Amino acid sequence: MPQANAKQRVACYQFAPKIADPSFNLEQSLKAMSEAAERQAKLLVLPELALSGNALRDREEAFVCSMSRDGTRLNALAEQARALDLIVIVGFCERLEAGHVANTSVMIQPNGQRTFYRKAHLWNRETLIFTPGDCAPPVVQTSLGRVAMMLSYDLQFPEWVRLAALSGAQLLCAPVNWPASPRPALQRPVEVTRVQANAAVNHLFILACDRCGHERGMDWVAGSTLVGADGYLLAGGISLDRPQLLVADIKLRTASDKRIPPYNDILGDRRPQLYGKLCQA
Amino acid sequence: MPQANAKQRVACYQFAPKIADPSFNLEQSLKAMSEAAERQAKLLVLPELALSGNALRDREEAFVCSMSRDGTRLNALAEQARALDLIVIVGFCERLEAGHVANTSVMIQPNGQRTFYRKAHLWNRETLIFTPGDCAPPVVQTSLGRVAMMLSYDLQFPEWVRLAALSGAQLLCAPVNWPASPRPALQRPVEVTRVQANAAVNHLFILACDRCGHERGMDWVAGSTLVGADGYLLAGGISLDRPQLLVADIKLRTASDKRIPPYNDILGDRRPQLYGKLCQA
Repeated sequence: MPQANAKQRVACYQFAPKIADPSFNLEQSLKAMSEAAERQAKLLVLPELALSGNALRDREEAFVCSMSRDGTRLNALAEQARALDLIVIVGFCERLEAGHVANTSVMIQPNGQRTFYRKAHLWNRETLIFTPGDCAPPVVQTSLGRVAMMLSYDLQFPEWVRLAALSGAQLLCAPVNWPASPRPALQRPVEVTRVQANAAVNHLFILACDRCGHERGMDWVAGSTLVGADGYLLAGGISLDRPQLLVADIKLRTASDKRIPPYNDILGDRRPQLYGKLCQA
Repeated sequence: MPQANAKQRVACYQFAPKIADPSFNLEQSLKAMSEAAERQAKLLVLPELALSGNALRDREEAFVCSMSRDGTRLNALAEQARALDLIVIVGFCERLEAGHVANTSVMIQPNGQRTFYRKAHLWNRETLIFTPGDCAPPVVQTSLGRVAMMLSYDLQFPEWVRLAALSGAQLLCAPVNWPASPRPALQRPVEVTRVQANAAVNHLFILACDRCGHERGMDWVAGSTLVGADGYLLAGGISLDRPQLLVADIKLRTASDKRIPPYNDILGDRRPQLYGKLCQA
């Protein structure tokens, strides 16, 4: 266990997965883990669907690119996590029964423990391909602290991030694939803004690892973002279409103190008994 | 009624209310309304507690600065709203019974209709002074469209903004007093970021009118912010400690379309049946 006051280095590795090429993508992921460990990171987030690519044509192609929870590719990542003493969070296409697939992320700890999360809010053509998850984002006790996990479009639902915060998450890790869209000159991508606000209103750290590159006519924000519990950027947060390792040194445990002295508490000040009522005109 | 496709000009007037000087503050507010109308604005937001100032010593002083819903000062604002054909939203200290007071905002329409909202989430020493509101933010049908109202710290609770969106708000008006706090160089104030994210995740316009100046040792972000339904800034959004009239031309009705074609809907994609469950580790 690290010293209570020590900072912990965490990282995102933004890269360009190749569509429908799991072997190439696994190799990139293992390499990313090595680079992160060389930089003394203890936790690494990789993009959403990093092992399959994003722009899958249909459920059949996704099924071909899918992998099971104990398959050889996740085993290879687990072996690397053990060897490097590194927690890794990565998105992949999960094989379900009868030709079905899910957009899933896995957290693999050095001790071999694997935690899975299936994306609950599906984006665009994902609705045609993936079976949505029905479980809340998991919050996992790790050697660094309490780490939660969700995926991309999930971050657009503040209710979902709130659930993780109420479950004690100190750090939220989100593999993402943010599709590029027009934005005003000189303004930060709204995807980044949403991550910052999610961190601020819950007082927790967030790592959102995006992808870069081009894929079957699609471009991406390529805006991987590391945000402090105060909502301010620690690294990334700009659109930069190239592979990059981004790191930040954080004290996870500071995220557990939700007080704003002397009278406020960011979670305690919630009034959930009022949140079910609609407004009168 | 404006043409369905016409843009409507809306405004914030950031100024420095004088503590415990309602007459001066009323005069400033009436002047702000005139300036906004001269600029062809149809709706104006003024700061929180604009008529009393913010740093009230205790409930006794607040009571002295308080006013009733049909008192002479609100009547003067209503007369100005009628004369200028301008909707005004302004924060004031509301007189309740038995020495109690509330941190309230009022929306006054040119036809004389007044809608009130009492701040539900109290900030810092407000907890010692004000009686909190127990009602959801109102959503009012106006000549411009459906306009909601809340105050300052309320914006830190995404649940509260969501309620307004679910009630059909196209524009959310928030008088605020954002206390200054340290922030990293070159980063946008997190208060602004939160407003942007609230707009983006609900696809509605937001006007947050802050104050400027110094008051009994307190400074303010002075970061009045006008945000589009896409979460991008239309005006303001930077810390600028001086009085300023900020305007934007918007089509309120565009905020009612929550679809992201072809498969998504920003409110329809919510999964409220899952939002009550906590996370399993």
